[in-house]
Amino acid sequence: MTIVTLLTDYGATDTYVGQVKGAVLAISPSVTLVDLTHSVPAQNVRAGAFLLWTGVEAFPPGSIHLAVVDPGVGTARRSIAAQCARGDYFVGPDNGLLPAAIHRLGGLAGAVDLTRSKYWSPRLCRTFHGRDLFAPVAGHLARGVSLRELGEPIADLQGPLSLPQPSQQGDSLRGEILHVDSFGTLVTNFRGEQIGYEFALTLRGRRIVGRRDAVFESVAEGTLIGLVGGAGLVEIALRNGSAATELGAGVGEPVLAQPPASAHTASS
Amino acid sequence: MTIVTLLTDYGATDTYVGQVKGAVLAISPSVTLVDLTHSVPAQNVRAGAFLLWTGVEAFPPGSIHLAVVDPGVGTARRSIAAQCARGDYFVGPDNGLLPAAIHRLGGLAGAVDLTRSKYWSPRLCRTFHGRDLFAPVAGHLARGVSLRELGEPIADLQGPLSLPQPSQQGDSLRGEILHVDSFGTLVTNFRGEQIGYEFALTLRGRRIVGRRDAVFESVAEGTLIGLVGGAGLVEIALRNGSAATELGAGVGEPVLAQPPASAHTASS
Amino acid sequence: MTIVTLLTDYGATDTYVGQVKGAVLAISPSVTLVDLTHSVPAQNVRAGAFLLWTGVEAFPPGSIHLAVVDPGVGTARRSIAAQCARGDYFVGPDNGLLPAAIHRLGGLAGAVDLTRSKYWSPRLCRTFHGRDLFAPVAGHLARGVSLRELGEPIADLQGPLSLPQPSQQGDSLRGEILHVDSFGTLVTNFRGEQIGYEFALTLRGRRIVGRRDAVFESVAEGTLIGLVGGAGLVEIALRNGSAATELGAGVGEPVLAQPPASAHTASS
Repeated sequence: MTIVTLLTDYGATDTYVGQVKGAVLAISPSVTLVDLTHSVPAQNVRAGAFLLWTGVEAFPPGSIHLAVVDPGVGTARRSIAAQCARGDYFVGPDNGLLPAAIHRLGGLAGAVDLTRSKYWSPRLCRTFHGRDLFAPVAGHLARGVSLRELGEPIADLQGPLSLPQPSQQGDSLRGEILHVDSFGTLVTNFRGEQIGYEFALTLRGRRIVGRRDAVFESVAEGTLIGLVGGAGLVEIALRNGSAATELGAGVGEPVLAQPPASAHTASS
Repeated sequence: MTIVTLLTDYGATDTYVGQVKGAVLAISPSVTLVDLTHSVPAQNVRAGAFLLWTGVEAFPPGSIHLAVVDPGVGTARRSIAAQCARGDYFVGPDNGLLPAAIHRLGGLAGAVDLTRSKYWSPRLCRTFHGRDLFAPVAGHLARGVSLRELGEPIADLQGPLSLPQPSQQGDSLRGEILHVDSFGTLVTNFRGEQIGYEFALTLRGRRIVGRRDAVFESVAEGTLIGLVGGAGLVEIALRNGSAATELGAGVGEPVLAQPPASAHTASS
Repeated sequence: MTIVTLLTDYGATDTYVGQVKGAVLAISPSVTLVDLTHSVPAQNVRAGAFLLWTGVEAFPPGSIHLAVVDPGVGTARRSIAAQCARGDYFVGPDNGLLPAAIHRLGGLAGAVDLTRSKYWSPRLCRTFHGRDLFAPVAGHLARGVSLRELGEPIADLQGPLSLPQPSQQGDSLRGEILHVDSFGTLVTNFRGEQIGYEFALTLRGRRIVGRRDAVFESVAEGTLIGLVGGAGLVEIALRNGSAATELGAGVGEPVLAQPPASAHTASS
């Protein structure tokens, strides 16, 4: 009953994701396949790393996470499998896609460069490693093949271990928008525990008040609100609407977090 | 081999649906997960109620239907689990999303207010009950925990038990468009058994003839046709095209159903 | 642990796909359901035939492929089940959707006209055979019911056995764009083995050089490149961009393949 999750930038209009699943099932017919998302913006490793980071924690330890956003497919970039401290496995390109998610689940316990072609498809398409290399490897891991068996041990992965961190600026934290979700909610890189119970955010000259445990209906229809969302990050939401549209803001937009004057007064 | 279906307004671009599935599997690893749809328009409980109503009947009795369209998440609205007469379970917010679907499967056999936090995730995000409350509850139901164990019995659910009903106006039935499907077919709230074998529909001043057992190719390319669709409701379709585009009509649009003059004559 | 794949033009915004899955599971609860795609352009049998052809080979032999793009649903077109030489089963309308995929897996080993209504849903909606006829038949096949049991043997299927083939024009091959994928990559009908190791493509007056084993990063950012993709067909890709947008080209666009002057010189 091993779980294999899938995250790619393959979209839903082709059969690419289906082919990857077929290739996993061809090796390991009894896995449970779960889509994380296949709507990572094309070739956007950074967006993929964020989405993978958001998705893995909810799964039971020991799950296998197959992630492919791979502009360098077929080049010298390594193909890797890794295990994290919680016990989950990760399979994908060594291009910065995996480390933040691995870090979230306790950090790296071991990794290999996938060099043993006996665990790949006999026909390796140079532009479709998702189906011909990563999927069979995930299938073999699900069958119980050990990480060590799949390739040569490596010590470090490419790319940052964590999401971009906010920086201190006087009494403010300076951060950025990491993601805009399908509701138009803006997800910042402030962790809930980095801010006070009440806080104020400034973005594009607009000031938005927030409360760690706010919910959408904490404010009137059409009002912006700061809260801590499901990923543990501060978000800017608009009740029954899109904060992204209201603010004209997207990924990369700088945002400041401060203690609100009123909250400051109230607590003194 | 319990089936858990999922219907939300979470979309496909985030990992929210994946996280919900992970949380179900963390409790009950052997369930079969099936997406009904995750494209309910954001926060639109009424659209979600219609789509849930369309989806559940095809599943075997005893399935668990997890449905989350929840603008009031984190407020005083109740979180509920219910069983219908056919034996299926429903889990979701008590905001009108579930009753029509429950009614379709024979009506309410029992329901509880989900008050026992031991069946939730230890960390409850106030804006993500889908993952942290409803998913674990569905997982526990799948493992065989009884409804009664999950919370306090309640007698009634919020919201209407049925879809909006047509009203009689002289020799006409006055109804409305409940849904526009991905083909652009307009789904009305006339049930097949409420109309004659042949009928005429009027919408936006256009008259469309229909027959209960018509199919798309019953008419010439580009012609509008009334028929009874897969949900048992009267639909307006355009052969090889979009009736919604052709008619400029959407959800909520009023529509009249009448016996057609010709049919009337033919049968007299 | 039988696999049932699904390919339709039902989209993701309705519960149609979910209902089909429910109907399969109602007959055969232990199947593994895998989506190939549900984004076939509405009623476009030819596009569906191509996508089905791309998707089936990755699955283990003996899988059941349920495919429904069916503008003639409810008319005299036959409903069929077929087995291919590799052992996989196909279920769907006899309208040209299935033959190319069957051919890819070794050709037709047997087929039946689905005439035995005892293997259908008791209530057959005339416009939703996906749920009421094809899904139950796939479920019965998964349970071990034999092809012969499901209907009357037929010898031939409607429609071409293969994708459109390129034609020779002097020293050039004349082909066409069969598909534009979600990355904007243009998929031609030239098979990798029909062209040389190096080649040149001409489309809309633009000349694009290609190499059989090229990858996206073989060229500079923003440059077009010809390569052989995951389906074994020649593709035109743009590194980190959309070739379709760059070229303003879509499905049906003619394209020429020639040996490149330089390659010709080098090999002489």
